Amino acid sequence: MRNPQLNKNGELTHLLSIEGLPKGILESILNTADSFASVGEREVKKVPLLRGKSVFNLFFENSTRTRTTFEIAAKRLSADVINLNINASSASKGESLLDTIDNLSAMQADMFVVRHAQSGAPYLIAQHLNNLGVEHIHVVNAGDGRHAHPTQGLLDMYTIRHYKKDFSNLTVAIVGDILHSRVARSDIHALTTLGVPEVRVIGPRTLLPAHIEQMGVRVFHDMAEGLKGVDVVIMLRLQSERMKGALLPSAQEFYKSYGLTPDKLARAKGDAIVMHPGPMNRGVEIDSTVADGGQAVILPQVTFGIAVRMAVMSITAGN
Amino acid sequence: MRNPQLNKNGELTHLLSIEGLPKGILESILNTADSFASVGEREVKKVPLLRGKSVFNLFFENSTRTRTTFEIAAKRLSADVINLNINASSASKGESLLDTIDNLSAMQADMFVVRHAQSGAPYLIAQHLNNLGVEHIHVVNAGDGRHAHPTQGLLDMYTIRHYKKDFSNLTVAIVGDILHSRVARSDIHALTTLGVPEVRVIGPRTLLPAHIEQMGVRVFHDMAEGLKGVDVVIMLRLQSERMKGALLPSAQEFYKSYGLTPDKLARAKGDAIVMHPGPMNRGVEIDSTVADGGQAVILPQVTFGIAVRMAVMSITAGN
Amino acid sequence: MRNPQLNKNGELTHLLSIEGLPKGILESILNTADSFASVGEREVKKVPLLRGKSVFNLFFENSTRTRTTFEIAAKRLSADVINLNINASSASKGESLLDTIDNLSAMQADMFVVRHAQSGAPYLIAQHLNNLGVEHIHVVNAGDGRHAHPTQGLLDMYTIRHYKKDFSNLTVAIVGDILHSRVARSDIHALTTLGVPEVRVIGPRTLLPAHIEQMGVRVFHDMAEGLKGVDVVIMLRLQSERMKGALLPSAQEFYKSYGLTPDKLARAKGDAIVMHPGPMNRGVEIDSTVADGGQAVILPQVTFGIAVRMAVMSITAGN
Repeated sequence: MRNPQLNKNGELTHLLSIEGLPKGILESILNTADSFASVGEREVKKVPLLRGKSVFNLFFENSTRTRTTFEIAAKRLSADVINLNINASSASKGESLLDTIDNLSAMQADMFVVRHAQSGAPYLIAQHLNNLGVEHIHVVNAGDGRHAHPTQGLLDMYTIRHYKKDFSNLTVAIVGDILHSRVARSDIHALTTLGVPEVRVIGPRTLLPAHIEQMGVRVFHDMAEGLKGVDVVIMLRLQSERMKGALLPSAQEFYKSYGLTPDKLARAKGDAIVMHPGPMNRGVEIDSTVADGGQAVILPQVTFGIAVRMAVMSITAGN
Repeated sequence: MRNPQLNKNGELTHLLSIEGLPKGILESILNTADSFASVGEREVKKVPLLRGKSVFNLFFENSTRTRTTFEIAAKRLSADVINLNINASSASKGESLLDTIDNLSAMQADMFVVRHAQSGAPYLIAQHLNNLGVEHIHVVNAGDGRHAHPTQGLLDMYTIRHYKKDFSNLTVAIVGDILHSRVARSDIHALTTLGVPEVRVIGPRTLLPAHIEQMGVRVFHDMAEGLKGVDVVIMLRLQSERMKGALLPSAQEFYKSYGLTPDKLARAKGDAIVMHPGPMNRGVEIDSTVADGGQAVILPQVTFGIAVRMAVMSITAGN
Repeated sequence: MRNPQLNKNGELTHLLSIEGLPKGILESILNTADSFASVGEREVKKVPLLRGKSVFNLFFENSTRTRTTFEIAAKRLSADVINLNINASSASKGESLLDTIDNLSAMQADMFVVRHAQSGAPYLIAQHLNNLGVEHIHVVNAGDGRHAHPTQGLLDMYTIRHYKKDFSNLTVAIVGDILHSRVARSDIHALTTLGVPEVRVIGPRTLLPAHIEQMGVRVFHDMAEGLKGVDVVIMLRLQSERMKGALLPSAQEFYKSYGLTPDKLARAKGDAIVMHPGPMNRGVEIDSTVADGGQAVILPQVTFGIAVRMAVMSITAGN
């Protein structure tokens, strides 16, 4: 079965998940993002690559921050952007997801940026378009359930490459609520594909998926041990709003064991970088001293995220 | 009394209702839409006709789908679009509708696209502007109460003309909840103005307005009979959210009597087309086999809708 | 301590409050607004001054009307506008205001237009950017708590200058709910800075701040007396939704004492102008006869407001 993200020439036509994408495609996205990184610093922050194209932000789940990054990326590519919050609209009138998509496609959309609480929704949309033989509409996953958040994964890779140059001799630790994190899944796929020799996940048993080792990672429950000698620390947001039932004793307990404090960070390499997908819970998964400290690259991640999203949009639209 | 939709030269300056518009104006909108139909297929889907104009989408009633079609149409004409959801704003501060309009006019608006739950609200606005002698602001009705939805009526006409070429020998049936449907009213006015010799309405007594025959239509309660030999079937959405009290036994009962199934459709001409304004209630007013079948032109309606709205906007703004 | 609104050359880099701005800066804003006043009347209502810049409307407090005026002003300057309603987003995820700002700054924002229910929020943001040494992001206060609404103050000055030419021999009365009004505070600072010799405030004791005389105004509790011989009457909206507890007997009582009726207005000069920031409560603080009468310049205020906001945006962005 063909990878639904690729067209018949093997080129990226949708971005649904980093899982299953070849290394070459990941690298080409990072390289293209390089060429866009300077656009944000120009006097006129615009390139005409998507001029006259219609990009639909389909947010079935509210996320102002992510929606904003895609909106900015699309506008810097000169696209027309249409924001749709679908909770309040057709969904409430009982229309099916695919009827909504068919309708928006009939409005001659060029791209759907899809955020959905259900894992697999962007796949369903892309498969539907593929089945119909529609080749001129591209789907970009902006986060689906617990499944994937590929542009976050890519911007994380861009950030790591920016600071560490080479993936082939790194040790990277991902810390916290792995279980509920689509970012963690996307990062693990990206890191292993790009050749990072050691990826670690650190968290309490209750916040780690069963059989996570099968993704090619080393599991640690003790943070001090897990951070020893790492080059990159990726902290995750504690998805408290997603947790049903009592997976955790309390935020304070979590902070004690898994919050990134200066002394825990001291176990990592001296030039280790600290990343976080935001928004941060200061004093829960990360200490303010670290969040605002010299090793944190959390704000550069945001800046690189615009360039990476511009790259994904222009590459898929061009294929 | 002058038709409030026309300026002193008899040209269309507002689009409020199809009722009372001469055939020539309807035809000129359809012809202009023809010239815009190809814009959506271009690499750069833009023409500069409304560049630098401010189009305000004033949605006093939420409708993401309709708002989106107008937003796209305006952006393809290069206008600046300002979306206003008025429930949450001044209306709640007790400001009157006309004070709101005066304020937005003072911001040098060029066009108001108005959706309102109250029949007649767009008329009130247009009359107010006409009374003030304001000639450079144009009002387009995007659906008012049960009264009218003229751009939907026009895109339905565009669709029929596209597939049937000539209105003068057609039989057209409109089926379902005629009583609550502004689309039905707009379609009936458009069809009779454009010279369709036989317009039929099909529905249960409880969902037909009293004295509907006076609009020049034939009334049927039996769907099999009503569809016999028709060229065009326009299905209506069952406006269940609008029905107060028990006008219907159940959605299942409705489907049995008035849902468009393949066997009911077989009573129509072999080349009959099936239309629906969307969003569809599959299994209520239309069977999925029909909705997705070869006679359905429901998605082309959406595509034509963009061109028709571009035509309405550019014609009114030009007059 | 340096005025946080000015850069090291003493030029306006943020607009936070009229308080503390030198007369020369106020005048240069009004003069620049003059040059933009004609843009709204052009066929193409656009100038390319902010092309490729990203203007973020950060509305922590909902205000469709004010947001719209800034959105239009930014679009007429050719900026890309991103609207953020922050209640529904990161704020609910527990992110701090300054983390939100850091994030949006990292998206290479060029301007934040900030509306916030808390007095001082725009100051906090501007100080934060100043402390970081960020010089390319500009903050414009679109209303903070009871503190200031400087663009409203400036558009009021523009309106007065338009009709009265010279500030130096005017008597201006501000009437109504002074206590809760950021507009009143901004107007008083602007009027005194621009050299208006007599500024009066008129209202019941319960709606006047303690020690208001210290702002250089004359206090009146009797409206007929306070309006005697004035050139300009600035009516305020009765902020009923803000009043906690019973500061007023009733809206009817208020109207009787402080509503602007034709006979009260007759106490002012014959050519006095009547202003109101909107939205009006007709029959509460202003009679409809006056609101729609020949002395009212309430709608021109709105039109001038666009030009003034364009001026503020282009001046701060240029410095």
